[in-house]
Amino acid sequence: MSIDPSRYRVSGGKPIDLADWDTRGDVVGSDGDSYKKALASRTDELHAMQETLYADNRRALLLIFQAMDAAGKDGAIEHVMSGINPQGCQVYSFKRPSEEELDHDFLWRTTRALPERGRIGIFNRSYYEEVLVVRVHPGILQGQRLPAHLEDAKDIWDGRFASIRNFEAHLARNGTTVVKFFLHLSKEEQRKRFLDRIDEPEKNWKFALADVEERAHWDAYQAAYASCLAETSTETSPWYVVPADHKKSSRLIISEIILDTMRGMKLEFPSVTAERRLELQAIRTQLVEGSGD
Amino acid sequence: MSIDPSRYRVSGGKPIDLADWDTRGDVVGSDGDSYKKALASRTDELHAMQETLYADNRRALLLIFQAMDAAGKDGAIEHVMSGINPQGCQVYSFKRPSEEELDHDFLWRTTRALPERGRIGIFNRSYYEEVLVVRVHPGILQGQRLPAHLEDAKDIWDGRFASIRNFEAHLARNGTTVVKFFLHLSKEEQRKRFLDRIDEPEKNWKFALADVEERAHWDAYQAAYASCLAETSTETSPWYVVPADHKKSSRLIISEIILDTMRGMKLEFPSVTAERRLELQAIRTQLVEGSGD
Repeated sequence: MSIDPSRYRVSGGKPIDLADWDTRGDVVGSDGDSYKKALASRTDELHAMQETLYADNRRALLLIFQAMDAAGKDGAIEHVMSGINPQGCQVYSFKRPSEEELDHDFLWRTTRALPERGRIGIFNRSYYEEVLVVRVHPGILQGQRLPAHLEDAKDIWDGRFASIRNFEAHLARNGTTVVKFFLHLSKEEQRKRFLDRIDEPEKNWKFALADVEERAHWDAYQAAYASCLAETSTETSPWYVVPADHKKSSRLIISEIILDTMRGMKLEFPSVTAERRLELQAIRTQLVEGSGD
Repeated sequence: MSIDPSRYRVSGGKPIDLADWDTRGDVVGSDGDSYKKALASRTDELHAMQETLYADNRRALLLIFQAMDAAGKDGAIEHVMSGINPQGCQVYSFKRPSEEELDHDFLWRTTRALPERGRIGIFNRSYYEEVLVVRVHPGILQGQRLPAHLEDAKDIWDGRFASIRNFEAHLARNGTTVVKFFLHLSKEEQRKRFLDRIDEPEKNWKFALADVEERAHWDAYQAAYASCLAETSTETSPWYVVPADHKKSSRLIISEIILDTMRGMKLEFPSVTAERRLELQAIRTQLVEGSGD
């Protein structure tokens, strides 16, 4: 199964219409076995590259997942990442901000959760909510205690896009690669998945009335996503629009994009200097002769 | 492979001598296949119980790992936990405390990293370092800016044990189960593993001179561990002494202890009330008839 990540990448800088972007995905056929094999081989490669990232301990990778409800973010994170070492992987799910968090600027709470060097960080939702749900429901801004000139500003979204672009450029310069996934789901497929959550008792706990109410704002969300993707997809921190109607296809595509990104990071196992080699040999002698016993 | 967790459990409240505790482990024979199967079946059960813990979202599990260097903490965390959903699992490795952390009491920095409800938290080292490395090197206390009466106190360790016991009892009362693993390694096996780290270039990065120097304090560490385990192993937050000379055995034992603990938590999938069921049906009608479209 050959997957070309560039096909899903948003160039950035020019308007896009999400209606032009595929939601179906056609990577996986009906053959379940070949899907399993394709995912397993990618997971193995990911595992190996994560070990190098961890040993090298100078770079980090931040994966951001955004989507409409029921698009499969949680499942994708589980299936794509579950083969790798949990010690090198940090997942944060961001919910409604707390009072303390609202007492800070909109990049503060996620900044505290950035991955350390050597790790893969995963944000299940992120600061991007601030130009998505907040843009669809601008009333939320009233609770953010912004200075008055900001609250009234027509260009508040342009300001936030600039903050995000500059923040991610800063991260890139300092060793953290940021890659962003929009799981692109059709409205009809979301309806089916909500019905499943109602009809299958073991999925009931995942279901919230508020999720259905948000469907009334579907078009506004699509517009907000389109604007956000166009404004914040950059060469160093790109957005990918991943077709999400077929879960298996979306997981393989995500997996391939992560691999492609890590290959591009040119990670290398830390090398040992000649000086360090001599030091190691001296310790070896100590250990063998028992004085380090 | 039948494993009895109680065999490795420290009763607490009475002195122990670690020389009486096995470091070898005899759970796994030379048959690699049966090890893989035994670990895989445990990982599957762990995965299922984690799903329930996550869905229920009221309880949490904290696993603490402590050991001498090269005892296999990192490998155990990787192999025992890597089959599970990284979204429900948070691993923290604690290193030398920062200046900011030292400006607080010794339970502060780890408290901030406690697992949220629904999650499994893993501490790779923990607040227990404060009664282990600090006890072996009491000079460290000088840098902790303690009130003078504490620094000079002969009973500082008793005070810390009391703080830890009370803290873990508080966590237990509020839904977080704490289980503690001491990976019990022999001094000779540590020597072999250090030599491996020198001789195998891809392990060099794991090796630090300071680790070898700590071998001079081996007996003091064993005494500090023995005291700590006896003082802080309780009914609700027990210590387990896991033989660590054979990595595969130690991983199976750890896996079985985690399963045994989670079985004891009597986790259940959240149930749906009659009222909630009616609400779900109303939404279902909306979705099917298209008004929630």
